[in-house]
Amino acid sequence: MATRRKFLKHTSIVGAGLLAVPAFATQTFSENDKLNVALIGVGLRGTNHLNNLLLRKDVHVTALCDIDPTRIKIAQDHIQKAGFKAPQVFGKDDFDYRNLLELKEVDAVIISTPWLWHTRMTVDAMKAGKYAGVEVSASNTLEECWDLVNTHEETGTHMMILENVNYRRDVLAVLNMVKQKVFGELVHFRCGYQHDLRGVKFNDGKTAYGKGAEFGEKGISEAKWRTAHSVKRNADVYPTHGLGPIAAMADVNRGNRFVSLTSHATKGIGLHNYVVAVGGEDHPNAKVKFKQGDVITTTVDTANGETIIITHDCNLPRPYSLGFRVQGANGLWEVDGNRMYIEGQSQEEHRWDEATPWLEKYDHPLWKKYGEYALGAGHGGMDFFVLNAFVESAKANIAPPMDAYDAAAWSAVTPLSEASIANNGEPQDFPDFTRGLWIKRAPYDWVKEMY
Amino acid sequence: MATRRKFLKHTSIVGAGLLAVPAFATQTFSENDKLNVALIGVGLRGTNHLNNLLLRKDVHVTALCDIDPTRIKIAQDHIQKAGFKAPQVFGKDDFDYRNLLELKEVDAVIISTPWLWHTRMTVDAMKAGKYAGVEVSASNTLEECWDLVNTHEETGTHMMILENVNYRRDVLAVLNMVKQKVFGELVHFRCGYQHDLRGVKFNDGKTAYGKGAEFGEKGISEAKWRTAHSVKRNADVYPTHGLGPIAAMADVNRGNRFVSLTSHATKGIGLHNYVVAVGGEDHPNAKVKFKQGDVITTTVDTANGETIIITHDCNLPRPYSLGFRVQGANGLWEVDGNRMYIEGQSQEEHRWDEATPWLEKYDHPLWKKYGEYALGAGHGGMDFFVLNAFVESAKANIAPPMDAYDAAAWSAVTPLSEASIANNGEPQDFPDFTRGLWIKRAPYDWVKEMY
Repeated sequence: MATRRKFLKHTSIVGAGLLAVPAFATQTFSENDKLNVALIGVGLRGTNHLNNLLLRKDVHVTALCDIDPTRIKIAQDHIQKAGFKAPQVFGKDDFDYRNLLELKEVDAVIISTPWLWHTRMTVDAMKAGKYAGVEVSASNTLEECWDLVNTHEETGTHMMILENVNYRRDVLAVLNMVKQKVFGELVHFRCGYQHDLRGVKFNDGKTAYGKGAEFGEKGISEAKWRTAHSVKRNADVYPTHGLGPIAAMADVNRGNRFVSLTSHATKGIGLHNYVVAVGGEDHPNAKVKFKQGDVITTTVDTANGETIIITHDCNLPRPYSLGFRVQGANGLWEVDGNRMYIEGQSQEEHRWDEATPWLEKYDHPLWKKYGEYALGAGHGGMDFFVLNAFVESAKANIAPPMDAYDAAAWSAVTPLSEASIANNGEPQDFPDFTRGLWIKRAPYDWVKEMY
Repeated sequence: MATRRKFLKHTSIVGAGLLAVPAFATQTFSENDKLNVALIGVGLRGTNHLNNLLLRKDVHVTALCDIDPTRIKIAQDHIQKAGFKAPQVFGKDDFDYRNLLELKEVDAVIISTPWLWHTRMTVDAMKAGKYAGVEVSASNTLEECWDLVNTHEETGTHMMILENVNYRRDVLAVLNMVKQKVFGELVHFRCGYQHDLRGVKFNDGKTAYGKGAEFGEKGISEAKWRTAHSVKRNADVYPTHGLGPIAAMADVNRGNRFVSLTSHATKGIGLHNYVVAVGGEDHPNAKVKFKQGDVITTTVDTANGETIIITHDCNLPRPYSLGFRVQGANGLWEVDGNRMYIEGQSQEEHRWDEATPWLEKYDHPLWKKYGEYALGAGHGGMDFFVLNAFVESAKANIAPPMDAYDAAAWSAVTPLSEASIANNGEPQDFPDFTRGLWIKRAPYDWVKEMY
């Protein structure tokens, strides 16, 4: 991994000053000083990462892989328009990504493929010595969770789970409040993925979102692969957007850990109703039995005596909300209703403050530093930050803020919730993916250390 | 129970017209046509019921029982000031209420005593042939839940659990929406008791609320008896304010039932912190180990495939909220943030409507009829409605809207959550208190039948 040392000098530069525009966007980097990044999967999500990479002067996108040639073409066009050298391309079959991983011109890979490929590709990337970033959720089974951890430990190569919500401005402000003990000792959390995905899980085979009742072979984009998980699994298949931020606040795997959970699913009627409403009662998909319950409620116990409620609510009509609540001995934040209460500090006893002034007061140093740039047209907001953390961690070849242990613990909610639901809510123990090291691992300093 | 038939004629009168002022407040009733009500327990809650009873011309308060003579004196004064005949009084010892129950001048009793007396007194009342109303929660153990049901069935005497939140204006409007199928098929509910009770669980032995760190023998009012439950039990000891309204919406015990639950408790730090903050580190109560977790999360599965999350959050600083959410195939209501979304009807797709116009549109017939009166000075709001339902049900000697099966099922959450928490979240089955009859019991018509 000696090739990474060349980047170390830039790390300190980036951390040095309060710049409205990041160093990587203004400085000149020699080709030798750039991080060579490959993208495996350039669907909508991978292309989004590509576009953010193309804004950086410290990155060279050297290779692409996708089994869909139309997506490769789009990505190539983006790279050409941005004025960069053409990348090597891969995708002649499902395993051509392994040829990409053999390239010496690749230091790091970003994996934005269907869920069933995430762990396989991340494991292969680490085995090939490539710093790996993988989209959420990282794993589908407990064995896959262990694969991430064990491969990381065996190879010494790092991986990062690319959970963008950990970088949402309100989330980082609340994390800042947590670390400054504004909430006092932490007690209870809520989070979840509450997002009407019916128009994502089904389409007409032509437009990605919002039209049609097809999925699988007749669908495109996410409907092509994501919907199958709703057919086959009664589980919280997408826990990390909610749980990642909470895990960071609760120092999970760093002085704390998830101990056990129970999970409950409602009946599943939303997807069937949608197929009938959009495609009619005689549509072939009206016969599909969707195994996934519409609202899945998981409650996690932590080693430090907190509880976390995680909600998965994606098959019914509803406005979007990640439903965050962070509660401690001194008060609590709730994202729904945008409200905050801190005893002795809120304007009135027993009355909510509007959260906004609190979030502004505790705006995270990262957002203060780069927020203006990140929010600028096309710079990606929270996607900028998660990608930046990945690139800077890979350049320095250091452990990322959200590592293999985190990817494993967060993703484990899927198989554990499935087992609990299948067994009438029976509690399921989390594996200790750190093999006991959570007891002494130091908390990550999300304020000082992070990019 | 023949004595009750005399009231039947008035029932139809009350139901006949749309009156701003209820019949009982304007009509003249002969002494023989009045419901003779006794109050067992005239603490703050019982006195509140007394004051609302004294506004009714169809009720005669014939007896009082309390072991605290100062409370008896206050109640007597209220009765005298209202110009009514002096009641018989009881309270010479803990069981003097049984002498009250032998009076032929008592048709119905309202029981507002510490929790450990609720079931005992309600059972004794039914055995004595008195129509019984009991404050929440009704029972502390599963055996007590069965006592209520079995005594009701053996004696043929009715009992009502006096859950006032079932009559809250927003709750009844949402119930109205549920019954009119606005939410479509029901899927998921949330509710709970989220109320900072630290100033209730502790006082200075002189003022009921907000001062001091004493409880038990050195406390007064609720601190005298309620706090012991936080010392001894790690359970949701107060589930009905949230669960009662949800049970009504979900037709529990009438075509549906609670099947099982899991429950998780956080560590308990709030009460200890409060004692130290108010009384200092050397206060004797700073040594008390409070068994109750600060936030208790219970998830219930119903026979119809819904889930219900119940929260108990009473030991930490926080603004009050019962945290209601009612979610179906078409949309959802959330009390937090005061918001509503109904697919195809809300103003914008994927955007919340403010709930208020919806709640006004679906204002419940009862509130339309009596709301102006109920909200008038001193008439009690939702307390008016729950008392009215009790009095009218007792006058007609018919089953109340919330009966022994409801009292048992709702209260069962306490011992079941305790068992689940003690066993790491293991699922606990609800007894079927209807002995199978929930399958064929008709839903209560909360719109047409209720008072």
